[in-house]
Amino acid sequence: MNRKVVSINQHSKPQAGGTAIDTLQSLVSNEMQMVNESILARMESPVALIPQLAGHLIASGGKRLRPLLTLASAKLIGYTGHRHIKLAACVEFIHTATLLHDDVVDESALRRGQETANVIWGNQASVLVGDFLFSRSFEIMVEDGSLKVLKILSSASSIIAEGEVLQLTTANDLATTEDVYLQVIGAKTAALFAAACEVTAVVSEQGLNVEEALRSYGNYLGIAFQIVDDVLDYSAKQTTLGKTVGDDFCEGKITLPVILAYRRGTDDDRVFWHRTLQHLDQKEGDLDYALALMAKYNTLSDTLDRARHYGAMAKDALAIFPDSPAKDIMTDIVDFCISRAY
Amino acid sequence: MNRKVVSINQHSKPQAGGTAIDTLQSLVSNEMQMVNESILARMESPVALIPQLAGHLIASGGKRLRPLLTLASAKLIGYTGHRHIKLAACVEFIHTATLLHDDVVDESALRRGQETANVIWGNQASVLVGDFLFSRSFEIMVEDGSLKVLKILSSASSIIAEGEVLQLTTANDLATTEDVYLQVIGAKTAALFAAACEVTAVVSEQGLNVEEALRSYGNYLGIAFQIVDDVLDYSAKQTTLGKTVGDDFCEGKITLPVILAYRRGTDDDRVFWHRTLQHLDQKEGDLDYALALMAKYNTLSDTLDRARHYGAMAKDALAIFPDSPAKDIMTDIVDFCISRAY
Repeated sequence: MNRKVVSINQHSKPQAGGTAIDTLQSLVSNEMQMVNESILARMESPVALIPQLAGHLIASGGKRLRPLLTLASAKLIGYTGHRHIKLAACVEFIHTATLLHDDVVDESALRRGQETANVIWGNQASVLVGDFLFSRSFEIMVEDGSLKVLKILSSASSIIAEGEVLQLTTANDLATTEDVYLQVIGAKTAALFAAACEVTAVVSEQGLNVEEALRSYGNYLGIAFQIVDDVLDYSAKQTTLGKTVGDDFCEGKITLPVILAYRRGTDDDRVFWHRTLQHLDQKEGDLDYALALMAKYNTLSDTLDRARHYGAMAKDALAIFPDSPAKDIMTDIVDFCISRAY
Repeated sequence: MNRKVVSINQHSKPQAGGTAIDTLQSLVSNEMQMVNESILARMESPVALIPQLAGHLIASGGKRLRPLLTLASAKLIGYTGHRHIKLAACVEFIHTATLLHDDVVDESALRRGQETANVIWGNQASVLVGDFLFSRSFEIMVEDGSLKVLKILSSASSIIAEGEVLQLTTANDLATTEDVYLQVIGAKTAALFAAACEVTAVVSEQGLNVEEALRSYGNYLGIAFQIVDDVLDYSAKQTTLGKTVGDDFCEGKITLPVILAYRRGTDDDRVFWHRTLQHLDQKEGDLDYALALMAKYNTLSDTLDRARHYGAMAKDALAIFPDSPAKDIMTDIVDFCISRAY
């Protein structure tokens, strides 16, 4: 496959760059240091392969967006305790476990520009170390001792797995609707974003309104984030993001840019989509042609508009909180997540 | 590979047949019916592939030994509540999740005489449905609401994963000691047997002595069970047990029958073990030769003697309980697990 780098310039706005996430990292740098220590301490095991394999992914330069959201939420609501540190580590463990399993499921060779654990240590180790991190995250929650937190995170975990299975059943199925797509990403991505934010409200005992607001913020941000991720799969600069353009196309994943292009296309276009994505009969030039169809029907830019819609909902979910640096940064993070696509 | 059926007749004693497990099943048949209903209800999902795939394994005629142990323990201590029903379902979910992942890790094609889920639905679905069952088991525990139960089962899950990774790192390593082997099986098998028994003592609030006794019983029974399983891999009648003789040999798993044969062998024998198990350079007749070496050094029967030792410890762990039909059957179950090897 010829994998191309393309960019989307329609509806462009000033580049937010990495500034919002940099600002957030500065705002919570002390706490993030503690989260990192907690992550390192809790992935230890007498079985050396476990910290080795988990550490490869955990140290590979991910943004730690989910634990950052936990910490930002704590700042927002003025939580002064320490329970959110361990919970942020839990959230990152659950995320890392799903990445390890995803890379096995997707047979990925690259993540964040590095070889994936399954390539280096094999699928077997990736599956089992994922299981370990997942179990370990529950052990940490049990230590924290809140049944409500346990309920939120066990439910999120179960929804994530359900979403991943649903995604598997929609692969190569061009009849997948935007609605089902939203169910998939709401489950596989947004559920953990929502839980990452909500748990701080629980430990700080701020009441249902605050829990609900933070949950909504995380949920809508997660949906926007995943929509943008799916756009990036057709437009990312690999050097910048460590992503390969065209992975979803190669695998026949049915994401929103494809759903819109398929629905808006002619019968001839649909013959193309069926051949390439349903039957996975792909040849040189097919990805270019897919990108041309997406350009013709504006599906990448329209998909980004959908992301902006959820981004706006995320920002409005913060309305109940008074102005503060944390609120500003959480608002800017929404724009940052969307501006990744430029 | 030529896979052979062999049997061990040394130190044979009267065949216990399926009677002990049949008796146990009769003793707790009402409760087991409720456990089965709970399992079916809780593996439901709007994503149809989940109950389909999970149901394939769950309905495939396993003995449900672990939930049976939960129910037997409840009878033993006279627990009259219903919390153990859901917990027995949790234990079976954790077990099923590990089987789904094991079959992916081992690339198994057969389990209990049927095609494995990974063969029918692919590795991807097996990994993800395993994750779902695992998360769902935590959701059920959270509903039950005991942090102590959550601690026992999350710790068991984490130990299981650790044991599986340790097993992976000992594969093909003939320097593996009996001690490391015991660590592996203590973690990958006995931890869940122990937890399955212990949780009933917790919900029935019988105090630390009872918890400890049931935990020990489950632990030693689990060790004996796994040792026998590893013997069966070199001696089972496939038609009876749905197992293929020689799987461990083909994969280069270092189990106790091999550890003993390697340690007791000559230099020439060790050349053979290195070629076949370390380098996995196997040819027609190698399994027969391995079996001949095991016969020469009595390693299968001596391995069974080791199992009997742990079986005896399991029985003695029940000493604190007064005589009762439940105690008799839990004692007989130990013999049943060991007599599977004949």
